[in-house]
Amino acid sequence: MYKLVLIRHGQSLWNQTNQFTGWTDVDLTPRGVEEAKNAGKKLKEEGFDIRYAYTSYLKRAIKTLNYALEEMDRMWIPVQKSWILNEKHYGTLQGLNKAETAKKYGEEQVLIWRRSYDICPPALSTDDERHPCHELKYQGTPAANVGTEALKNTIDRIIPFWNNEISVKLKQYRQIVIAAHGNSLRGIVKYLKNIDNSTIVSLNIPTGIPYIFEFDSNMNLIKDYYLADEATLEKLMEEVANQGKTK
Amino acid sequence: MYKLVLIRHGQSLWNQTNQFTGWTDVDLTPRGVEEAKNAGKKLKEEGFDIRYAYTSYLKRAIKTLNYALEEMDRMWIPVQKSWILNEKHYGTLQGLNKAETAKKYGEEQVLIWRRSYDICPPALSTDDERHPCHELKYQGTPAANVGTEALKNTIDRIIPFWNNEISVKLKQYRQIVIAAHGNSLRGIVKYLKNIDNSTIVSLNIPTGIPYIFEFDSNMNLIKDYYLADEATLEKLMEEVANQGKTK
Repeated sequence: MYKLVLIRHGQSLWNQTNQFTGWTDVDLTPRGVEEAKNAGKKLKEEGFDIRYAYTSYLKRAIKTLNYALEEMDRMWIPVQKSWILNEKHYGTLQGLNKAETAKKYGEEQVLIWRRSYDICPPALSTDDERHPCHELKYQGTPAANVGTEALKNTIDRIIPFWNNEISVKLKQYRQIVIAAHGNSLRGIVKYLKNIDNSTIVSLNIPTGIPYIFEFDSNMNLIKDYYLADEATLEKLMEEVANQGKTK
Repeated sequence: MYKLVLIRHGQSLWNQTNQFTGWTDVDLTPRGVEEAKNAGKKLKEEGFDIRYAYTSYLKRAIKTLNYALEEMDRMWIPVQKSWILNEKHYGTLQGLNKAETAKKYGEEQVLIWRRSYDICPPALSTDDERHPCHELKYQGTPAANVGTEALKNTIDRIIPFWNNEISVKLKQYRQIVIAAHGNSLRGIVKYLKNIDNSTIVSLNIPTGIPYIFEFDSNMNLIKDYYLADEATLEKLMEEVANQGKTK
């Protein structure tokens, strides 16, 4: 049997200030650090035996992984980082306050930018210093050409990576963890559970709660569940869903 | 031109309590964390452009690397961990207080165990729970058979790793960092500078100070230097040299 563990990074500085983050490399807050540690503690308590780890190129996910691995006493396992696991790119919205953007453009437009399956926020131009072409870490990768993304684009980059890379490592190492972002993890969940385009946009993965997928020996998904009680989960999902509101 | 950066991990809990550590997986102290961060800050200030990193299977080295990379804004670079970069294994001395061991066996004997080139401390038996054969992370590796080491053994495992692995990555990535331990780093320094067996045993690499090796395009060593002023260096080397004394 194979186990995949997804962890969405905990609170970041811009979650706290309610700004669109995307590929902006903001740090975790102290609360985000605690969420990461708690995820690691929970996985240890439940006897998980993680042997390989993935994360994105963004420090809020990398640090979430590091803190969780430390709690699990697994800092020594191999870790692969890839920009392909990055959050959805939010184009020119990156840095703007979500509530102010909702006031300016209307809640409906913000909801489209945040939650439509295939409509992108306005693209960053390559002149804009926020464009990935100016960042060393994306040089020589397709990421240097990304100026905005719809959820569809994020998912389209993740599925080949799942098929060619992550699923291979899952077979080899049996238990792996991926510490990443709301939208990149949506891509994996959509693919594994065969969720349709209109349903996936409203799936809210709570932060810092290990989300477990168990597979049989033929890599058929048997079940998926969160390592948390029902009340905790509901509270967390509501928080995420409320972020785009004007108030 | 190629640049190799060595960082010896900063103060650990057992440095503070003056115990033989070896492969025991003890954490950094707050001072050790500061040393790691300062190493990263210094490398950033001096404009280093590190693209690949190595560390051991021991958390005091892994965390030193993580803190240094965070300060350099390079958490996204690939990191390879290997038991081959572990500290010298200290056999049955692991866990004993250095000064008490010096009182019991005499400073001379302790100095032999700590600093002889080819005499090992007494070996751990495989019955002993401290033996690496009981640790998950060493399963399936030659490390599971290591019950003690002389400096010679530590160096003998590191040289092939340098030739087949690290030197290849150095050519590919141009600037790499290795965060490791006093004796594993001695191995690399001995090999690169062609230092004889009796001299290498008294070479004290200070903790948390980036030690730079520059190579020309044919991988000939041009120069090596610490990123620190003379007074800081002398103070640090003296501290390390004094650890085996009874007082």
